[in-house]
Amino acid sequence: MLQEFPEENIESLATGAWILGTGGGGNPYLSTLNLRRLYAEGARVQVLQPSELADDDMVAVVSGMGAPLVGQERLKDPRHMARAVELMEDYLGRPFRAIMALEIGGANALSPFLAAALLGRPVVNADCMGRAYPEAQMTSFAIGGLSMFPLSLVDVRDNEVIVTRAESWKWMEKVSRAVCTAVGSTAATCKAPRTGREVKDWGIHDTITQATDLGRVVLEARARHDDPVAAVLDHAKGKQIFRGKIVDVDRTTTGGFLRGKTVIEGIDADRGATLELAFQNEWAVAFRNGEPVAMTPDLLCLLDSVSGSAIGTESVRYGQRVSVVALPAPEILTTPAGVAAVGPRAFGYDIDFKSVFK
Amino acid sequence: MLQEFPEENIESLATGAWILGTGGGGNPYLSTLNLRRLYAEGARVQVLQPSELADDDMVAVVSGMGAPLVGQERLKDPRHMARAVELMEDYLGRPFRAIMALEIGGANALSPFLAAALLGRPVVNADCMGRAYPEAQMTSFAIGGLSMFPLSLVDVRDNEVIVTRAESWKWMEKVSRAVCTAVGSTAATCKAPRTGREVKDWGIHDTITQATDLGRVVLEARARHDDPVAAVLDHAKGKQIFRGKIVDVDRTTTGGFLRGKTVIEGIDADRGATLELAFQNEWAVAFRNGEPVAMTPDLLCLLDSVSGSAIGTESVRYGQRVSVVALPAPEILTTPAGVAAVGPRAFGYDIDFKSVFK
Repeated sequence: MLQEFPEENIESLATGAWILGTGGGGNPYLSTLNLRRLYAEGARVQVLQPSELADDDMVAVVSGMGAPLVGQERLKDPRHMARAVELMEDYLGRPFRAIMALEIGGANALSPFLAAALLGRPVVNADCMGRAYPEAQMTSFAIGGLSMFPLSLVDVRDNEVIVTRAESWKWMEKVSRAVCTAVGSTAATCKAPRTGREVKDWGIHDTITQATDLGRVVLEARARHDDPVAAVLDHAKGKQIFRGKIVDVDRTTTGGFLRGKTVIEGIDADRGATLELAFQNEWAVAFRNGEPVAMTPDLLCLLDSVSGSAIGTESVRYGQRVSVVALPAPEILTTPAGVAAVGPRAFGYDIDFKSVFK
Repeated sequence: MLQEFPEENIESLATGAWILGTGGGGNPYLSTLNLRRLYAEGARVQVLQPSELADDDMVAVVSGMGAPLVGQERLKDPRHMARAVELMEDYLGRPFRAIMALEIGGANALSPFLAAALLGRPVVNADCMGRAYPEAQMTSFAIGGLSMFPLSLVDVRDNEVIVTRAESWKWMEKVSRAVCTAVGSTAATCKAPRTGREVKDWGIHDTITQATDLGRVVLEARARHDDPVAAVLDHAKGKQIFRGKIVDVDRTTTGGFLRGKTVIEGIDADRGATLELAFQNEWAVAFRNGEPVAMTPDLLCLLDSVSGSAIGTESVRYGQRVSVVALPAPEILTTPAGVAAVGPRAFGYDIDFKSVFK
């Protein structure tokens, strides 16, 4: 049964999505401006449960692609996301039953809503990362061995590309990233279309609800002047990894990604220790005094210790008081195939995955 | 009326094409190996005159794309060129009546023959450069204001891309070049399809015949131990610009192009002078003692002074004895719109075009 996504949930979804991932297509608060405007113009987005899809329904998987710094600065136009979906429909010669998010982390949690509001299609309550990851092959669909093509890409000018075939997920990533970089490191994409069956079998379900609930808990804690970091840990069954102050940031935009590391000097229980957080768009591995202590696929979040707001790899800066927390990963990401796709080695760290939750 | 392209013309076409342009998809002699093999297996390619096309026939415009050094080293597989044509047919949902060359210079003169031999389609006796040029917008079709999309691109693995829309020829060049670079700076492409009417109005006609005749003249002069450079000048109504010895080469592969310059020390009538040839895949401007004396769209050729073989920007080296000759450009390239598209300013030189033939 379709359920209307109420306007008052938009801020909760954006807040939760920003905690679940800061590299996923930029800042979700910018996307809320677009979505609120569409609601003000009368649009309403319906949410559909994966179980309600017919096996042969076609589902569009959408995301904004690019370097976080660009997504941070440029307000997305919802028409580009809708156009990426239409371009794929034209290519397939079949309409989509519904639209879903590639990643529930960051602005891309809202990307399907923008397209859905313009196209009058429902959004599926699911994604394929359960957070945000920087590369195309880092999805539950890739882990499930599903096809990686075709992919449509639309830029902010009038350029449109379809990758009709790719040898592998890595090649799909490489080719689509090259196009994205050429058009200014920001583009709207419609990834390989999925059948209803594929979404039911390999999607990460209920993540729209999870992100909205997480965001609501944080907003409510803030309103009550409670500790929002504690509220996140409590609601999402997370673990605090470190508390401290940012003392160094090393960051470069290269090959369409934002890469680097930040160093945190401990306070309170962590006084005397340092934590280094390495990142590629998203936080990847935490080293305490040089030893890896937490890592992907456990979800590492950097939160402002006072407001509980997430701090992204593109906006972390000297002097911020921060809490590093880990949240449990969706089960599929911690399977051997999952760890191969999104574990520390997938980010270039020769470390065996060890969960802080085991 | 279709005319069979006889096997004995393959070497003449390759020889002529190599004089008309050395950056056009690499060395044509490698492509002759492929085409001869297809002929040995029974394939025969028919040549069609532009005037024989119906106005609403669809024509595929093909080329290998990439940096000359890569094209020089990697033997092309004719199936990739054929696949680029088929991919475009699938996308259009319409079959092509015939196939034509993007550029008659370099290996790309033979590219339509490779696809045609496999697909059983004729080759049109035309191209849209009358030589070779490094960028997508440097064509008579672009000068005519025709559409620049869609474009299909197939690599040597299993990656396939369609650029379904581009804001401009420059953006088409930028996006397709980014894909080409990502897949290793070599790819088979089918450019924007043309109607029979467009080929008749804006194609550069008869260039398959012209290249074949030019090549035959050189081969015959060589066989007679005559001066092949003189034979080129005589047959193609060219002018000798300089004779000398290569004393310096400065060359880098960057952004999918081969750029740089070579310096020639004069001999005979040019003793005491130096000529500097600046290039981007193709020779662009000749500076004699620092003054520009010959430039695109006049066609600059660097020929081995003894054999008359063309020397490409990718293979020029210290010590070679060379003759620099200029050949007249097709009329459309010397119009104001032509000079804007392919004149010295299009290559970054702030010089007014002055033809050596006026």
